[in-house]
Order: sequence, then structure tokens, then C-alpha cells
Amino acid sequence: MYIVILAGGSGTRFWPVSRTTRPKQLISITDGSTMLQRTVERVLPLKPKRILVITNHLQAEESERQLSSYRSVVNIDIIAEPVGRNTAPAVGLAATIIAAHDPEGIMVVLPADHYIRDIEGLQNRLIKAVHSAKNGWLMTLGIVPTAPETGYGYLEADLSLRGEGPFPVRRFVEKPDQITALNYLESGNFFWNSGMFVWRADTILAEIATYMPELAVELDRITFNDVWELADLGEQIEEVYSAISSQSIDYGVMEKSSRVQMVPSGIGWSDVGSWSALPDITDTDEQETVVNNCASYINIESRGCIVSGNGGVVATVGVNDLIVVSTGDALLVCPKNRAQDVKKVVEKLSEKGLQDYL
Amino acid sequence: MYIVILAGGSGTRFWPVSRTTRPKQLISITDGSTMLQRTVERVLPLKPKRILVITNHLQAEESERQLSSYRSVVNIDIIAEPVGRNTAPAVGLAATIIAAHDPEGIMVVLPADHYIRDIEGLQNRLIKAVHSAKNGWLMTLGIVPTAPETGYGYLEADLSLRGEGPFPVRRFVEKPDQITALNYLESGNFFWNSGMFVWRADTILAEIATYMPELAVELDRITFNDVWELADLGEQIEEVYSAISSQSIDYGVMEKSSRVQMVPSGIGWSDVGSWSALPDITDTDEQETVVNNCASYINIESRGCIVSGNGGVVATVGVNDLIVVSTGDALLVCPKNRAQDVKKVVEKLSEKGLQDYL
Repeated sequence: MYIVILAGGSGTRFWPVSRTTRPKQLISITDGSTMLQRTVERVLPLKPKRILVITNHLQAEESERQLSSYRSVVNIDIIAEPVGRNTAPAVGLAATIIAAHDPEGIMVVLPADHYIRDIEGLQNRLIKAVHSAKNGWLMTLGIVPTAPETGYGYLEADLSLRGEGPFPVRRFVEKPDQITALNYLESGNFFWNSGMFVWRADTILAEIATYMPELAVELDRITFNDVWELADLGEQIEEVYSAISSQSIDYGVMEKSSRVQMVPSGIGWSDVGSWSALPDITDTDEQETVVNNCASYINIESRGCIVSGNGGVVATVGVNDLIVVSTGDALLVCPKNRAQDVKKVVEKLSEKGLQDYL
Repeated sequence: MYIVILAGGSGTRFWPVSRTTRPKQLISITDGSTMLQRTVERVLPLKPKRILVITNHLQAEESERQLSSYRSVVNIDIIAEPVGRNTAPAVGLAATIIAAHDPEGIMVVLPADHYIRDIEGLQNRLIKAVHSAKNGWLMTLGIVPTAPETGYGYLEADLSLRGEGPFPVRRFVEKPDQITALNYLESGNFFWNSGMFVWRADTILAEIATYMPELAVELDRITFNDVWELADLGEQIEEVYSAISSQSIDYGVMEKSSRVQMVPSGIGWSDVGSWSALPDITDTDEQETVVNNCASYINIESRGCIVSGNGGVVATVGVNDLIVVSTGDALLVCPKNRAQDVKKVVEKLSEKGLQDYL
């Protein structure tokens, strides 16, 4: 089994903790390990042959640094994309690399910036998916929805078969409106598209050849050494990326393929889309407050806040449902229900040319 | 003329900028000079013979540091009280020191932690007060009230005389309730008690002897060198302070003396009682925001905030009338109308034994 971690994201919604060179996956939103590190830690018990991390040149160095301590237990390759081209080229590149050495190798694709509460549950679902993937299926984990989310893509499963799955996938659907999302939730047939996939390298390459022939042609040009040694690939990857267009693997392959199955996964998953998601993925105190990285949090009649400090004291007096984040050089104060607008702060910093804070 | 600056205060309402060893008078609440430095700068044009700064042992070193650059233009003595005993002993001690060398020396008493917008106006009022003080009056500046403040003491003047004063003071009154404060404001006879006094050293000592004989007896014991040299006074001051009780000069003398006159002073005065006073004493931008010490303030649909940074970026999204203060090691978020409760934060820090942040 090969783990492919997609770690090239560049979000702005966790400013000021996230920065250009340290986006969401490279930071610790709760205390402790970063999201990339947690993604690795979750699959180590599955004893993967190798872990491929697909990132970009801005983040490669920090990714390398964060993963160095795991190299003693697993082989890790960090591959920097010259430009971001969404998930299809990243998945295709990883599949090409794996297939060159182990054509029927199983490939587990994991986004680096999601949270999963039930790690054992994840591992069990992945093992189940690996089993079907060996038979040539494109497997995906479908997250059992817990709310009528309008921010996620969904997949519709055919649950008419007995048991706990895998089940055939009827279709993928884009982010729904509120009423549609409610219908999805009530129907029981719809699941959140987690972006976690399991398949054989040769299977996905065959599907890419069918549905994304232009990408397949470019990937086919890459030549490899006999040994597993990726350091020399840089120039070839640059050529491929200069020739291909941006596309998601969901749209490029999954929505079209008839080989897709899913494993229902009620595993406490969250894409941690903004600061306001923190109470869902971490413990809160009796004032429903999330507190990270503070020497002390002094709470005078405040409630429901999300507080992320820089190691010192944070005090709030009589405020509710406020996000307060300090990194030492930058400070954010924002109501929880405006968390999506943190990206406006980053836009304004960019307009002002304040590079040091981006 | 001798300037006596009362700089021994120990407020907590400007936490986290103010700390035990750096209370309000030793910090810069707006950008630039500290309040103590501004107090000195305001009176330098009056060419005082000496400036006596009465502080305490915790703050003496920092006071010394902040005033060192003014020593080239004026003699400054920094006197550390061993314990705080309110204003009467501090005033009495300063008067005793001045009288020992210059009995009829005029003494201008100024609190170190007030703001005055109209500095020339202050200087003119002080000059007028000095003139009357020479004739043996206890002079005080009565601030022309601009609002029915319930947080200040008042004095009632007899304005039946023509001209711009000085006027006799009928009585001092404690902090009034809301209705009384409104009546005071409408009457036109009431003024805020500024704590700024002007008198001859021998005059105030005579009044202390009359109304506070126990204090006078202790002060009388202090012996002096012929030269103006206060370094050896430490032990004598400690003895005096161990024998006397705490009292304000207002209650101890001013409320009882019949020699009190006042100069009406509409000089843009504020005691800067809390963070919420900042918009009164500093410029605000078009969103009615006060911003100090920020590399940049990113305002996304916020209004009426008071932002004091630690040199980096502060961003607020969709919040109104919020105080946001960062010092690097500590951070405060508090609505303007709860500014008085900042002291509760300090109390809680003290309970928790977090000395580093006090």
C-alpha cells in the first residue's frame, strides 16, 4: 500500500496562523502536531510501503522539515509541483510514479488538511476499501453527513445491497443549496465527498487514459530509474505541468467512471474550513470556549470564543462567539459567523503589499 | 516655581500595557511620550527651578530612566515613597523639602497620569494660579465640565465676582450620582476637581499643621543639608511613612481650608480612567477607530474600536466598539462599555499567581 498525501493547498482562512509558506496543512490548528503530521500519523499503523507527499515549491521545505522524524519508520518522498493544477495531475503523477515500480500497487489518496476524530474507524474503512481496490474498483470514502452542509460536494450511493458496503456510487453532485442539502441529509443515500480515494495505480491510470487522455499522454512521457529515486524527476515534472490544464480528479474521472464504489464512513470527519470549525474538532470548556497555545486564558464573562494564542496570556471580557487569534506579529478578532471573511483580511494585506504578514 | 509630580499611582485599568512596574503614568497610551514624560514636557516652558517626582520604590527606576533626557534642561529629583499613603503625605513631604530650601517657594502639584489637550491653556491657568498663590492662597484648577461625569469629584465655585477668576471655592464634593451630576453640569458653578494645585510651600505646611497635625509633626522631624541633596533622605522618609496614615490632600486640607481659590480651566482635560477614554484624547479615523502602535490595522467592516498593537498587524472583522490591546506577551479583548472590568482580569491573574503578566 502506498499513501499519497495531497498537501499543496494554499488556504487563507486560518490567517494569521496560516501564511503563504505555511498553509493550513502545515500548521497546528489545535495544539500539537500539524495537520500534515496528523495525516501521516493516522496511516502509519497500516504499514504503508511508502508515503508520497505532493506539495509545491513554496511548501516543500517546511513539509520536509515536519516529516523528517517519520523517516525512521517509513519511506517518504516529497514531490513539489512547479504550479498548482488541482488534484487530477497530482493524483496522476503519483499513480505514474507508483505504477513505474509496482503497477498493481494500491494507492491511498488523502488530503493533508482534514480532521478525523475516529482514527481507528478511518483505518478500518481504508482496509475495506483496499480490499475492493485490489479487484479494480475506484474506491472512495463517503462521509455520513451529520448536518445539511452546503459547503461540501456529495455523492449518492446505491444502498440497496445488504451489509456495510462497499456500495456502488450512482453519481457525484456539486455543493447543494440549503433545501437540497436537507433533502440529501434526510434521504440517507447521500454522503459527503471526502476526497479520500483508494485504487490500484494501474486502475486510475487506465481511467485517466479514458477520461483525461491529454493528461495521460503527458504523464506517459515521464521515464524512471529502476530504483525508487525521485530526485531527478524535477525537470520532467516541470515539462508535464507546463503542458497540462487544471482539473480535479472528481470532475476529471470520478464523476464519469462506472467503476466507483464507496465505503460509508461515520468517522468524525471535518474539512476544517475556517476558524469556526474548531469547536467541532477539539474540546471546549464549560464556557464552550476553545483555547489553544495560551500560558493562560482569562475569561471574564465571555462565552463560545475560539482563542488561539502565541504562548502568552489572552483575556476576554464580556464577549461572545468571537475568534481571537494571535501569532505575535499579527492578531485577528472576528465573530465566529464571519469566519469566512478572514480571507478578506488576507486580500487587504496583499493589496497593501504587506508581504511579511501574508 | 517648583513642580511636584505625583507619580506613585498603581492602576490596573490599562492592562496589559500597564503592569505593576509600569502603571499608567509610565506608559504611552497614545503613541510617543509616556504620560509622565508629557507631564514634564507641559511645564518645561514655565522654567521651573526644580521638578520633584514623588513615586514609589517599584517605579523609581523606570521613572528615572524616562526622565533622564530632561535633566539637561531642568533639575529633577525622584523621591521614592516606601509605601503609598495617598496624596497628603506626598504633598506634605514635597512641601517640607521645598520649604527647607526656599520657604516661600511656589509649588505646582500635578498628577502624572492625566491628559491635557490645551497645553498653552494649562500654562496660562498655572501662571494665573501662581500669581494668587504668592499671596497665600491654596489654588486649584477647576476643570470646566463637559459631561455629567459621575466618576470625578467636583468643586463648587462662587462665580459672583466678575472676570475670569480666580474665584473662591465654596466646597468640595465627592463623586455625585447621575442626577446630581446633571444638576452640577447645568448650574455652571461646579467644576471637576483636577488634582492640580498651586501654593507656597509655607502656606500648605501651615494648613497641614492646622488640619493634619499628626502628619505635620512627623514631617517636622526631617532634617536637611544646606545644599539641595536628597539622596540621604531615604531613611528619614521611611520613618515618617511608618508613622503616618493614608489620606488625600483633598480630604485632609482642601475640603476644610478657607483659603481655597480656583481657576476655571477649560483645557481639554481627562483623567484617562480606562481604555475607553482614548477616543476623547486622540485622533480617530473615519470608522471612529483609535489605532496605536500597529504596522498596519486591517479593518473589515468594523467600527468604533480602540486598537493598541505591539508593532505588528491587527485585523478586526465585523466588530464594533471593541477594545483590542496586544503587548506581545498578553492580549485583551473587551467591549468599550466594559472597560472598567479590565481590573477583573488583573485580579484573576493575581489569583492565579501569574506574576509575569501583572
